[in-house]
Amino acid sequence: MTDARQGPALDVESGEWDLLGRYWDAANYLTVAQIYLQENALLRRPLRVEDIKPRLLGHWGTSPGLSLIYAHLNRLINKTGAHILFVAGPGHGGPAVVANLYLEGSYSEIYPEIGQDDEGLRRLVRQFSTPGGIPSHVGPPTPGSIHEGGELGYSLMHATGAVMDNPGLIVACVVGDGEAETGPLEASWKAPAFLNPRRDGAVLPILHLNGHKISGPTVLGRQSDEQVMALLRAHGWDPVVVSGTDPGQIHPHLAQALDAAHARITEIQHQARLHGSTGPAPWPAIILRTPKGWTGPDVVDGVPVEGTFRAHQVPLSGVRENPAHLAQLERWLRSYKPEELFDDAGRLVPELAALSPSRPLRMGSAPWANGGPDMAPLPLRPLETYALDVGVPGAAKHETTKPLGLMLRDIYLDTASDPRFRLFCPDETNSNRLGAVFEATDRCLMEPTGESDEHISAGGRVMEVLSEHLCQGWLEGYLLTGRHGLFASYEAFAMVSASMTVQHAKWLQHARELPWRYPVPSLNILLTSTCWRNDHNGFSHQGPGLIDTVLSLSGSVVRVYLPPDSNTLLATAEHVLSSKDYVNLIVVDKQAHPQYLNLNDARQHNAAGASIWRWAGNTGDSEPDIVMACAGDVPTEETLAAAWLLQRHVPQLRVRVVNVMDLLVLPPRDVHPHGLPDTEFEALFTADRDVVVAWHGYARAFHQLLHGRKNPGRFHVRGYTEQGTTTTPFDMVVLNRMSRYHLALEALDRVGRHIDGMDALRAHCQEMLDKHERYIREHLEDLPSIREWTWTPPARGLPGAPGSQPNGEGGDGHE
Amino acid sequence: MTDARQGPALDVESGEWDLLGRYWDAANYLTVAQIYLQENALLRRPLRVEDIKPRLLGHWGTSPGLSLIYAHLNRLINKTGAHILFVAGPGHGGPAVVANLYLEGSYSEIYPEIGQDDEGLRRLVRQFSTPGGIPSHVGPPTPGSIHEGGELGYSLMHATGAVMDNPGLIVACVVGDGEAETGPLEASWKAPAFLNPRRDGAVLPILHLNGHKISGPTVLGRQSDEQVMALLRAHGWDPVVVSGTDPGQIHPHLAQALDAAHARITEIQHQARLHGSTGPAPWPAIILRTPKGWTGPDVVDGVPVEGTFRAHQVPLSGVRENPAHLAQLERWLRSYKPEELFDDAGRLVPELAALSPSRPLRMGSAPWANGGPDMAPLPLRPLETYALDVGVPGAAKHETTKPLGLMLRDIYLDTASDPRFRLFCPDETNSNRLGAVFEATDRCLMEPTGESDEHISAGGRVMEVLSEHLCQGWLEGYLLTGRHGLFASYEAFAMVSASMTVQHAKWLQHARELPWRYPVPSLNILLTSTCWRNDHNGFSHQGPGLIDTVLSLSGSVVRVYLPPDSNTLLATAEHVLSSKDYVNLIVVDKQAHPQYLNLNDARQHNAAGASIWRWAGNTGDSEPDIVMACAGDVPTEETLAAAWLLQRHVPQLRVRVVNVMDLLVLPPRDVHPHGLPDTEFEALFTADRDVVVAWHGYARAFHQLLHGRKNPGRFHVRGYTEQGTTTTPFDMVVLNRMSRYHLALEALDRVGRHIDGMDALRAHCQEMLDKHERYIREHLEDLPSIREWTWTPPARGLPGAPGSQPNGEGGDGHE
Repeated sequence: MTDARQGPALDVESGEWDLLGRYWDAANYLTVAQIYLQENALLRRPLRVEDIKPRLLGHWGTSPGLSLIYAHLNRLINKTGAHILFVAGPGHGGPAVVANLYLEGSYSEIYPEIGQDDEGLRRLVRQFSTPGGIPSHVGPPTPGSIHEGGELGYSLMHATGAVMDNPGLIVACVVGDGEAETGPLEASWKAPAFLNPRRDGAVLPILHLNGHKISGPTVLGRQSDEQVMALLRAHGWDPVVVSGTDPGQIHPHLAQALDAAHARITEIQHQARLHGSTGPAPWPAIILRTPKGWTGPDVVDGVPVEGTFRAHQVPLSGVRENPAHLAQLERWLRSYKPEELFDDAGRLVPELAALSPSRPLRMGSAPWANGGPDMAPLPLRPLETYALDVGVPGAAKHETTKPLGLMLRDIYLDTASDPRFRLFCPDETNSNRLGAVFEATDRCLMEPTGESDEHISAGGRVMEVLSEHLCQGWLEGYLLTGRHGLFASYEAFAMVSASMTVQHAKWLQHARELPWRYPVPSLNILLTSTCWRNDHNGFSHQGPGLIDTVLSLSGSVVRVYLPPDSNTLLATAEHVLSSKDYVNLIVVDKQAHPQYLNLNDARQHNAAGASIWRWAGNTGDSEPDIVMACAGDVPTEETLAAAWLLQRHVPQLRVRVVNVMDLLVLPPRDVHPHGLPDTEFEALFTADRDVVVAWHGYARAFHQLLHGRKNPGRFHVRGYTEQGTTTTPFDMVVLNRMSRYHLALEALDRVGRHIDGMDALRAHCQEMLDKHERYIREHLEDLPSIREWTWTPPARGLPGAPGSQPNGEGGDGHE
Repeated sequence: MTDARQGPALDVESGEWDLLGRYWDAANYLTVAQIYLQENALLRRPLRVEDIKPRLLGHWGTSPGLSLIYAHLNRLINKTGAHILFVAGPGHGGPAVVANLYLEGSYSEIYPEIGQDDEGLRRLVRQFSTPGGIPSHVGPPTPGSIHEGGELGYSLMHATGAVMDNPGLIVACVVGDGEAETGPLEASWKAPAFLNPRRDGAVLPILHLNGHKISGPTVLGRQSDEQVMALLRAHGWDPVVVSGTDPGQIHPHLAQALDAAHARITEIQHQARLHGSTGPAPWPAIILRTPKGWTGPDVVDGVPVEGTFRAHQVPLSGVRENPAHLAQLERWLRSYKPEELFDDAGRLVPELAALSPSRPLRMGSAPWANGGPDMAPLPLRPLETYALDVGVPGAAKHETTKPLGLMLRDIYLDTASDPRFRLFCPDETNSNRLGAVFEATDRCLMEPTGESDEHISAGGRVMEVLSEHLCQGWLEGYLLTGRHGLFASYEAFAMVSASMTVQHAKWLQHARELPWRYPVPSLNILLTSTCWRNDHNGFSHQGPGLIDTVLSLSGSVVRVYLPPDSNTLLATAEHVLSSKDYVNLIVVDKQAHPQYLNLNDARQHNAAGASIWRWAGNTGDSEPDIVMACAGDVPTEETLAAAWLLQRHVPQLRVRVVNVMDLLVLPPRDVHPHGLPDTEFEALFTADRDVVVAWHGYARAFHQLLHGRKNPGRFHVRGYTEQGTTTTPFDMVVLNRMSRYHLALEALDRVGRHIDGMDALRAHCQEMLDKHERYIREHLEDLPSIREWTWTPPARGLPGAPGSQPNGEGGDGHE
């Protein structure tokens, strides 16, 4: 049954379908062989127990459907010359995809040891899901893939990101009906609202409904064709259904549906490129209903298997122990007639090999799956263009992310003729002070716009959608096909897509081990609206957890930067936007903060990752009594204020200030390649002095990084704490675990000797803390002395008499 | 414009709408007052600069819509006596919800200091979004709420979970069009496939389209009524549209739509309860289109605001500095005629107060939002019913989670007449060896079932949907309304909903601080298919990251258990299913593992959290040379095997084995209430001996927990490492950083003195490691000595001669 519309009429009786069916048989045969066999790959002799792998691990259920689609896409490529990238949402159907890559030749080209002969076939089947071999999922080792199908939900968003600014590309994206139940996949259906046929390529979703998950039915699998079509239509797609259990009938109908889809895509793009885009395009989509585990065992031990959930993994189990199962497996394998598919040398017979596309068009060789056909770096103007001119460090405030907005604007301008950069953000580009990009481009939306809209158009390249999943997933697809980008998010809500960050880091880590994979631009995640400055949003908006998530991942791919000001942020941005194969996490608040370093100093600071801020301490190169260390913008300001208090009121105290902007200089080098050698580490933090640390994230994350350093107990870390406050966290309230006064008090406690002025400063700090608590409840804002504090060099050596300045706003103009 | 169908005809001219409109005015007035005012709450005198808060923080845009809906729900309650719980998806419209709660009286009842008089009003406006006051979001402090609207996406799943097994409840769930772009919300629309009108209550979604997010349009907001209706219809809802910009027109139409929806819900439930359920019910839904920031400033500084994105937060800014804005704010406030809404004492005038429902029906007093009307504990049969009879510890293997399945089965059986327990799981109940539950109930699905299905029916109470978001979100809604449950997930993919875990922990932590909130059953998350045993799934399926996420959260609410075997798991389950207000993370693999403790020992072990396993060491109560510590099932087995090797081959070595099942005994007590006092900690781990730790998660997470303990450097932790392996991780390969041989080698290195047998054991370990590496590549499975190893008491004092047993499978039958 089908209602595939349009396209040229097809001859159902054509011999083409026999050939295509045999090609499909070959793919299915190799799939079953990979799951079961370790020897006797072509069944040249009767099947024996020793031929069977000791452990049977793999997923048969989805595999025949994937192979059917792959074979038909080959046909479409041969017929049309289309450039198609294949995304297998049901990526656990790995053996099917590998089978097809092997048949078309791209697999042996990349892995010559898996050649197209008997020995190659033996190695092909042995390697699958065995030690030293390949995993059972599509993933980095799979040629032609940009998608790991383990954690379900991201296939369609990866596909969508891949076609952005790739006008000549079609991504054929198979979505399983299990994956279709996930939230991220459901969100992905709205792609037509964001794909512009004038400049973007096309996604062709093939929703493969086989009706079952591991052991239960799927929602879409049980709904009517009309209902599933209505769902896709509501999202803007124009779907057709291809459905059946008879291959003889499916082949012509699926071919017709694909032909029609290709014709429709071509027409949509042609019209849009001729006349411009008007509204979301009615992109074609295919709903394919075929039995789970099709062509596999119909009934096993009297229980139905084909077309049921029981076909999900290994339909025949215990094959080594159960002779009946062994016999049934042999019948199943022989049903594909391997002797007619492969010649005596173990090569696919010529009439079938001829069905594979020519080398440049083979999906396994698609350059888009390996860094893109023409990956070019981003043009970055000299940072001097955007750098703030910082006079006295800490004297003036500026919205830290604003200059970055200018830099991104120019990237948009300078790539206008060869678009390869996009910014992805839930809906906070302006709120994050990156609004300068709208001088160069708009937000993208294909839906109608209105008079009151600002910077919205079909031609925009800023991608705003209120879904961290979509933002990150689109960006991942964009990066894995060789382009560049940035995902900017509220810090707390970046946890929404934390699992995607984990999976992407795993992908990169694995891909780096494969010599044939080109490096791809890094995944850059900018966290703003941080836990320290969510003035009105409160507890639910405070969460530095993504740092912890990222720190656990492999040091070979993750980087965490906390630039303390604008110029360090610019230098960080320059670095990460030029880097490859990393997950770069950048944490910086968007609001007005003191600025400290001129561009040159910022570059040096970034290059070092952490350095002594001599201007903020009073020790020069000599040993301090106490080290005040900080990481993150708010902690830096508080540390400077504490250092100021200490120097102002206890002038004999030798204070050193160290700022850490690259968090991963802290662990030893065997943990992370950025880890400082012990000598350099101790040059910063001394070998034995106490270090009072003000740190952006959870304190224990910082302690974790210090593990392996000598004497870590001397580091006294104050970080973000889950306070469960019922109050609105104004600056001082948020900081109540680590504010300047607390930091100064901690430093006084840690020095270990008495110095004049200490007691007075202690009293002063305590007084200010009490006073502030009362003040904010009365006046509903911070004390002026907190609100308006800026750094100036402390008047060193002057007698400090804090007691004589009862309101804390004495003649020095700061405190 | 409206197409609200059905329901009784309404008199558009009725005076009812004037009154309702004035009630809405009162709510809007109080909303604006909360955002702007700190004094002069009722504008008894002209507005002055000093009346304005110093910082203006809040969200106006969504508020008038929320208040409109709330007022109309009041009307529906008055008319029908319906029990309605209100979920505000756009929870940042907090001031609107608080305004309505204040007007109906429930707010003052819970917070008497915010009384219904002048002083109460003053406090009401001052507390909003100020230090010591309330956050700007709906959240735990909001009476009648089970939902925090900060991290968007979960409103409809919370609503759906709340009505499960609550046949008399309707949850009116407002979904904003921003939230509607998120993946989790998109997934939630499939609720009709899982709600059974025979036994569940009803969710009434009110999709509130105001067209804008912070600074851009929304996808649904720009789509046609037909398209949005088609989307909801495709998911099984029967939506109507109520749309307009004229309150006079909206009131009757919204009332009509709500009346019709209520009538429809009643009819659906009546039919289902009379005749049984047949297929998904066509539940009503309302699509409400009203202007963003309705009734607010139309134009500010010449720029349109009402109905645009500019109304999102504070439409008039800089009110203290800009006299024109101050004047416009005063006109805006006075447009609601506060003097006609509140009497001279500051009380809502009687004719408006009469519109609030009577006390038992007020949405702010809904018992479902505060532990449920009749929260009852779960009946738990004696654990002896399920406990394994463990003979020699470690001698036999058993699928660890299987007895838990029996326990859950009996919970289903014993709550059949008063259903208050559900299991939520993507689709792995069987795979997780919990399939015994299907002896008591089925998986729930309202869609058609087929012959080959097993345990699927509309009456089932096991909730399987391939969405971690839905599983967890439904469960959260179920728990927050006073029922019990368990979310079982693949360990790696529990990270998909990690941000929900963070938000739920924050909710519980905050709620515990509120004396009026009753404790609710804990969120129990069972992680199986762990990183150590994903035999065929590989790297993408390995991730112990949720432990790290949970460890960062407040010690007052989080618990992490790693039961080493079945009986400890049963005792853990008994504890967590009886507990309240925690997030309990339980990590245990589903596959066959050695079993160690009889039930009584298991109970004692769990009560201690960590204990010395004397039978596994050779020191009795004396000081060991080395402590072998372990946490997690696979690490426990490996540690025992290592301890066995050490005792077998180096009989003079004094070895102690410590098992940790409650991870949070490790940190000091000021970090977590389970933290052991130092004396008890040292009674386990000694004061100064080296400890070789085999641990389930990332090694650094364990180090983090030890921070604050004396001399933490003596702990040598081997945990899961991101290996990026291209191999299929069979047991031994996975364990290659910490397997028995590595652990034994590490122990030998740490003892610090020479003992006879050490060198031979070293050589033996190295030989076995090399041999295993070759063996698995040849035979595609682990060495028999690994595969079949079971614990027996080491033959102490016998001369060990490993060199004489070249295959490692010597006469002792084990190695």
